[in-house]
Order: sequence, then C-alpha cells, then structure tokens
Amino acid sequence: MPQLDGTDEIRLVHGDGGRATARLIKEVFLPHLRDESLQLADDAAAFEFAGAAQMAVTTDTFVVSPLEFPGGDIGDLAVCGTVNDLSVNGARPRWLTAGFILEEGLEIARLSSVVNSLADRAAECGVSIVAADTKVVQRGNGGGIYINTTGVGQVLVEADLGYHRVRPGDAVVVTGYVGDHGLAVLSHREGLEFSTPVVSDTAPVWPAAGRLLKEFGGRVRFMRDPTRGGLASILAEIADSASVDLLVEEEKIPVRHEVQGAADMLGLDPLYMACEGQMVLVICSEAAGEAVEALSELTSAPAVIGQVQAGTGLLKMRTPLGGTKRLGLLSGDPLPRIC
Amino acid sequence: MPQLDGTDEIRLVHGDGGRATARLIKEVFLPHLRDESLQLADDAAAFEFAGAAQMAVTTDTFVVSPLEFPGGDIGDLAVCGTVNDLSVNGARPRWLTAGFILEEGLEIARLSSVVNSLADRAAECGVSIVAADTKVVQRGNGGGIYINTTGVGQVLVEADLGYHRVRPGDAVVVTGYVGDHGLAVLSHREGLEFSTPVVSDTAPVWPAAGRLLKEFGGRVRFMRDPTRGGLASILAEIADSASVDLLVEEEKIPVRHEVQGAADMLGLDPLYMACEGQMVLVICSEAAGEAVEALSELTSAPAVIGQVQAGTGLLKMRTPLGGTKRLGLLSGDPLPRIC
Repeated sequence: MPQLDGTDEIRLVHGDGGRATARLIKEVFLPHLRDESLQLADDAAAFEFAGAAQMAVTTDTFVVSPLEFPGGDIGDLAVCGTVNDLSVNGARPRWLTAGFILEEGLEIARLSSVVNSLADRAAECGVSIVAADTKVVQRGNGGGIYINTTGVGQVLVEADLGYHRVRPGDAVVVTGYVGDHGLAVLSHREGLEFSTPVVSDTAPVWPAAGRLLKEFGGRVRFMRDPTRGGLASILAEIADSASVDLLVEEEKIPVRHEVQGAADMLGLDPLYMACEGQMVLVICSEAAGEAVEALSELTSAPAVIGQVQAGTGLLKMRTPLGGTKRLGLLSGDPLPRIC
Repeated sequence: MPQLDGTDEIRLVHGDGGRATARLIKEVFLPHLRDESLQLADDAAAFEFAGAAQMAVTTDTFVVSPLEFPGGDIGDLAVCGTVNDLSVNGARPRWLTAGFILEEGLEIARLSSVVNSLADRAAECGVSIVAADTKVVQRGNGGGIYINTTGVGQVLVEADLGYHRVRPGDAVVVTGYVGDHGLAVLSHREGLEFSTPVVSDTAPVWPAAGRLLKEFGGRVRFMRDPTRGGLASILAEIADSASVDLLVEEEKIPVRHEVQGAADMLGLDPLYMACEGQMVLVICSEAAGEAVEALSELTSAPAVIGQVQAGTGLLKMRTPLGGTKRLGLLSGDPLPRIC
C-alpha cells in the first residue's frame, strides 16, 4: 500500500502548497505523468501551436471557503489565479475555460453573484471565457461551489524566464504587501474582526508582468505569484530549483501593519500566507531599481527584498537584529481552502 | 431572489444534462457570460490562435460515483470525455490539463490507480497532459476525487460542422450501442448484479471522428457524443437548435439485450442513459451507407437510425408497432454523478 509521510490517506496538509504538496506531486503524480512537456511543479506549460506563437496553458482549481470574503469571492479568485499563472510565465492571458461543481442546496442567488464576479473580472483582465461546464453533486459532497479555470495565453517574445536563468548577484523583488489574501479569508471564516479590516489582494498581475518584460526583456530571470504556501515557500522553491542561496532582509519585506498584528495574534507568519495579486521576481541587479520604479505605478509596495548568492539551495533571512535564520517550504498546520 | 423551476436552490436535477441543466445555463450563466465565442450550450469553442490553424478548446468536470466501475474509472472517463468533446467538434485532440480535487481521507493507493488510468488513456489517445493542479478539501466536502480536464485540439480543415448545416433529407447515424455507461455506473453503485454484466463503453471516439471527416468532409454536418441525457436528449437538442424535425426508428437504435433488460427492470430508458464512447452523426443521406461501412471497422454497432425532416424542432420516434411518439430532453428523476 503506497504511503506518503507515514499515512496511506490524503490529509489536509497535502493541499497546503508546501512540503507535503510537493511530496504528493513527486511521489503519486509524476511517476505516472512523465510527459516531458508536463511541469507539475511549475505553474504553466508552454509549447508551440501549429508553428505559430508560443502558447502557454495552465490549470487551477479553486475551493476557497467561504465563497465570499473581504475583497472578493471565488469568481474573482478563479479568474485572477489563472490569469496570474499565465502572467508570471510571460504569457498575455487570452482565453479561459470555467468548470463548475455545484452542491445541491446552493442558493441560485449566490451562484449568480459568483458568475457575475467571474465575468466582470474576465472583462477587466481582457480574457474571453471560451468554454464552460457545470456538474451538480449531492448535498454534503461539495463546498457550495468549486471552480476550475484553465487559461491559454500567448508568450511574449521578450520572455526568457526559468529557474535556469537565476544567477548569483541577481536581485529579488516583491511587488507589494504579502499575506493579505490568506489572512482575509482565514479571519472572515473564523468570524474574527480587527480594528483595521484585512482585505484580500485578489487582482490580476498582468499589466505589471507584461510591462516588466517589455521594458527589461531577458534581464527578468524569473517571476512567480506567491499563492498557497506564501512568499517564503516560493523563495525556498526558487533557491532549491535554481541551486542557489537566496538571502532576504526581513525588514524590507512589505507586510501591512494590521496583517502582521492579526497574524501575530493568531500565531501565524504572513510570509507563509497566500497572496493573490503579487509577484516575486528575480531580476538582474542593475535593473532592479528601475523595475521597482516602474512597478510603483502599478503595484502596492514594490521593493528589492534580497539577493541571489552562489550556494546549495538555501533560503536565508536576515532579521532586523542582524541574525540570519534559515526558512523552508511551509510545513506544519495547513490553512485549508484559502484559494 | 432568483428562482429556477420554482426553487431558489440548486437541485440534483440541474445536473442531469436535460431540461433543468439547459435552464440553469440559459438563466444563470449566459446572462453574465455574453462573450460571443462562448457557446455554453455547445461542447467546445473554436478560434484562431495567432494566425495559425483553428484551435478548439473544451472543458469538462468529472464527478462520477463510484470512482471505479465496470469498464473503467474516473481517470479513464476524464480523458475520454474531453477527447470526445474535441473529436465531435472536428478537432484532433492534442493537449489536456487535469485539475484534481481530493477529499481528505482518500486512499493514496486509489489516487495512484486513477492517475495511472488517466496517464494510460492519455497515451492511448495521443494527447499530452501539459499542466495539472491538485487541491485538498476536508472530509465530507468532496467525493473522493473530482477531476476537471480541459482539452486543446487542432480543427481539421475538412471539418465544417454545426447545427446550421443540418438539413432536411440528411441521415442520422449512431456509432454503436447506447446506454452502456449509464447503466454500468448505476448498477455498480446500487450493487445490482445481472447474469450478463453491463460494462461501460468509455473509449475515445477520435480515430472514428477523424476518419469520417477525412473521408466525407462537409457531407458530415454535425457530430456529438451523447453523454449526460443520453441519445434522446442529444437528438432533441439537434432538432430544436437546427429547427428541423428528426424522425428515428426505435428498432434501428442499437441497444444491447442485457442493457435493455436491466433498464426495463429499473424502470429506466436506455435512450436517456449516458454513453461515453459513442457519437451521433448527421450526414448527407447519400454518404450514410458508406459512413456506416467505414465505421463498422472502428465502432461497436454503427447504424442509420433516422432522418432529418423539414419541421419545427420535434424529435419523433416510430415504434416497432408503427406508431409515432414525441420525445423531449431528459426531464424527470435525475441519475446523478454518472460522469
């Protein structure tokens, strides 16, 4: 009987976007799905279509609970999440498909409101919903609404991105405040109220991603949106996959005061909480300042937060007091159904 | 408060692929999703990608219960279902994405077996799995495994298909025995045993669809795979959408003896039960005989079952005793989670 982390059953931790998810993919999915174009550990696959421009395809399923949260709903998330996966792979988002699983007993009014959000967000992002599907499952076999979106985009000729392009000396940039989405969903779900409300950052990163690629071309080495697992998990993945060390400065990482406060109260770390409208970039250090300047018109709090060093795959964080600690993938209590 | 068929909640009948599903799509989805390329009532959208060949995209979510059934499992179904939607739209299936929703408590061994089926079927169909995603939901919020597959294919230049091409005088052809899949899943779920076991027909229709288009080109007017709602619902849709009448001969419709017997016992009609490896074709009547001959090498029981007549959108069936009855979309007790 196959086992994963000492259990022969799927546990919630297998969906956390951290260490356990990585093992699930590596040990259960990849042995069967060996297709060379498949990069399950990556967020989109790019390939040529009939001799035309490079096309990127990505798929993502959304199971967020509750369906509505401060700053958006599952319809907003289902569009932005997939648009963002295309964007960080250097592809202009063009088309989406949407597959709905509806639970018996769902209010039609709520469904209608979610479909409306999805349509509005798609229009905002300039993508067309080209195919859709609905299935209904019995009460107690769903979560109200689950949505899969699959996106097709056109890779910009300027894009030359990948772990293999990350090199020592490069700068690490984040586009804005981290942890907002995870904390907004979690606190809304738990009925917590804070004096300053925390709102999800759900938004498309496309205009920003496209502008950076047009302006800086191959000097942008790598882009990724830090969703499940948060900023720290993505940084740990970059270090591991590119076989370099990353050194980040804790005090340079943009975290809203109210998010840090609420996270502290809950015993959580914003660096491991999902964002839904941010990017992490690795960029040639000479271009980093200009990139932050360009981003400042488009994103909430762009900042150079660290640098790439020759190394063995470690993520290191320098604390305000001058110490350095090592961070890894998210590994611990999962925050289920954040996206 | 929006209502559908006198209820303000989603009911199982909204997923049956018949009248209630049609209303859900028309009244809740289409008002928001007005994109001209979206054809929710159709099974795939076709569009040009960057000046290259016509591309078709389709999405489908699979929630079959139980996960394994005589003749296949949810992995087989998730590949064949989407491959078949592309095929009947005249597109050679090329790429698939797969989005999994896993329920806490799912046995890893079962997941591994499903992923294996999915990979094997994809290889058999010549499609690459180019992107995948997994999410985990809490125990009691899923059905073990739900899978969305989205497919991309390349439309054959020979394909000229659509409701608008159906005209009086054309022949209606079905490729093989109908109702096998629905009955196999239902009887396995209910623990029923028959002296001759009923096995799902889950299989790709691509080689057959491609061969017909290559050989008969525009003489093939329309193709569709009769899944949810069964053969009769698809025929009713064709009659309605093409504004013609269809007259079919009950005794020419291929139904296995054991399927008819089991359906009779259960009070069900095989003509309304899902197939997962068949096609319905409307084809120029002069080509119908040759098409059936070509299909006989590839499918289980190809037959001309009726003809298109000038009319107002009715589906009429001549019974063996010479009477004629009118059939409509599936409308009644739903058979939930058949696919």
